[in-house]
Amino acid sequence: MRTALCDLLGIEYPILQGAMAHITDGKFAAAVSNAGALGVIQCGFDTPEYMREQIQICRSLTDKPFGVNLIMENDRIDEIADVCIEEGVQICTVSAGNPATIVPKLAEAGIKAIVLIPHARAAKKMEKLGAAAVVCEGLEGGGHIGSMTTLPLIAQVVEEVNIPVIAAGGIATGRGLLGALAMGCVGVQMGTVFLTSDECTVSDVYKQLIVDSKDNATVLSGVPGKKQVRCIKNPFTDGFWERYYAGVPEEELYDYCTGSIARAHNGDYEGGAFSAGMISPVIKEVKPVAKIVTDIMAEADAAWEDMKRIYG
Amino acid sequence: MRTALCDLLGIEYPILQGAMAHITDGKFAAAVSNAGALGVIQCGFDTPEYMREQIQICRSLTDKPFGVNLIMENDRIDEIADVCIEEGVQICTVSAGNPATIVPKLAEAGIKAIVLIPHARAAKKMEKLGAAAVVCEGLEGGGHIGSMTTLPLIAQVVEEVNIPVIAAGGIATGRGLLGALAMGCVGVQMGTVFLTSDECTVSDVYKQLIVDSKDNATVLSGVPGKKQVRCIKNPFTDGFWERYYAGVPEEELYDYCTGSIARAHNGDYEGGAFSAGMISPVIKEVKPVAKIVTDIMAEADAAWEDMKRIYG
Repeated sequence: MRTALCDLLGIEYPILQGAMAHITDGKFAAAVSNAGALGVIQCGFDTPEYMREQIQICRSLTDKPFGVNLIMENDRIDEIADVCIEEGVQICTVSAGNPATIVPKLAEAGIKAIVLIPHARAAKKMEKLGAAAVVCEGLEGGGHIGSMTTLPLIAQVVEEVNIPVIAAGGIATGRGLLGALAMGCVGVQMGTVFLTSDECTVSDVYKQLIVDSKDNATVLSGVPGKKQVRCIKNPFTDGFWERYYAGVPEEELYDYCTGSIARAHNGDYEGGAFSAGMISPVIKEVKPVAKIVTDIMAEADAAWEDMKRIYG
Repeated sequence: MRTALCDLLGIEYPILQGAMAHITDGKFAAAVSNAGALGVIQCGFDTPEYMREQIQICRSLTDKPFGVNLIMENDRIDEIADVCIEEGVQICTVSAGNPATIVPKLAEAGIKAIVLIPHARAAKKMEKLGAAAVVCEGLEGGGHIGSMTTLPLIAQVVEEVNIPVIAAGGIATGRGLLGALAMGCVGVQMGTVFLTSDECTVSDVYKQLIVDSKDNATVLSGVPGKKQVRCIKNPFTDGFWERYYAGVPEEELYDYCTGSIARAHNGDYEGGAFSAGMISPVIKEVKPVAKIVTDIMAEADAAWEDMKRIYG
């Protein structure tokens, strides 16, 4: 299997690792890139100095391409973009907020900007601004979510833009990858499956919650109509909704959520916000990153053989 | 293209037409079956007598297989199942409510029961009860919705049952069909695309709303946590949410919704609840049912050629 995304980014397999705040640092991204997919360093609300350090760590650990995620809500995002340019980063993913100024800046510097978009209108706008590709992330994805689901989003976007389209949200298997290619995408972005890797630094409690999940294991938390996050349903999310429906003031709700991400990473089952995608129940074990990637590719190849039988 | 669903149901193309209340009657289902897909007669809250009449109309208009949808919430569903048995119906889809008694009854009578399921646990239960196949319908579908989206739902279900799995919700194109097959499904169920057919009896206003829709055109209406319906966003849905957030009592909300489906069918833009899937914006024209089906199959074949290039 070789898609236009492999050629565009110089990677072996058409898989991007989703940037996850406080998790996918330079060391982690290097592990993913060494496995033949594209590792992506998160930026969260980190400083330009921290980002430079992570980029350098990543480069010291891999000679393969890697990316840096730029979150538009980071107050110092322009400086971080400058760091990427200075450090010779080749690929940036851009998410959360309005990327209208950063995309042309990256494109001008020769950095391939891959932009997360919520609908076809935004995809067309990003194409005009010089984006190299777009990621369509459906609301089934973990963490911060949009308002459309993956299938109708990609169906619309592949028809409306000429740049490559990457599917995200609800995909963690080789079959999901092959399905995205069948629908006209050039590859996929996956988050949750990389969260359950040996190399991931979150606690074993977090990984095991995903491995043990069944059926519709995730819920949203966060005030409806404002930013919401998809998490594994647990006492923390139950508590959020109890408070919300009891009419607790928003300020108190924010207080309730403060620290919940760190608590999840540290394995506090009761109090953590365990961001994860709706695809969690298909993930059955914690594996090394390299095995995650090779298993996905082997599954995709097997699914391809099944499809050849359908077409006789 | 020939899948296990074609063999199971004796149809040419692996496409089920989703049953739509008050819309997909015997005449409409016959048009779909004559096009090589599976037409399905809706039951809504109709009587056994009406259903017998529609089954006979359908049979008089096609010699191809067709199905009857059984909604468990219809008070006389057992009698309607008896009518299906007496009339020699070969295929029933079963939805909305608990199908635990009706599925074994249908299976015993030799009728293939295809059950809509909301999660993998239900799929496994239906397999044990004798269902011939399951439909995984994601919340991106039009009308009444579940709580999971199509991609993670089918990814889980194909791994957990041995009976054929059909994808629904967010699919209206040949690429969507091919994507579902790549993910291990044997076919798809489509609703919205058949709503925009020449043969469909809803007003042109309804069809044009779908054709003109863009981006994230649909919203849910209905009390959160209770039954919700996906509709095209319009003054009716805006009015619903204004009332809901103003704290209007539930009884008044129900009054507000009463008659809204009929108003949509009659073309009342302001007051109608225009059920439609999130996939609506990919539908660009109103066509005869036969052309809808052949266009989808041609698109799927073209997408297949694209995939062959990916695999070199």
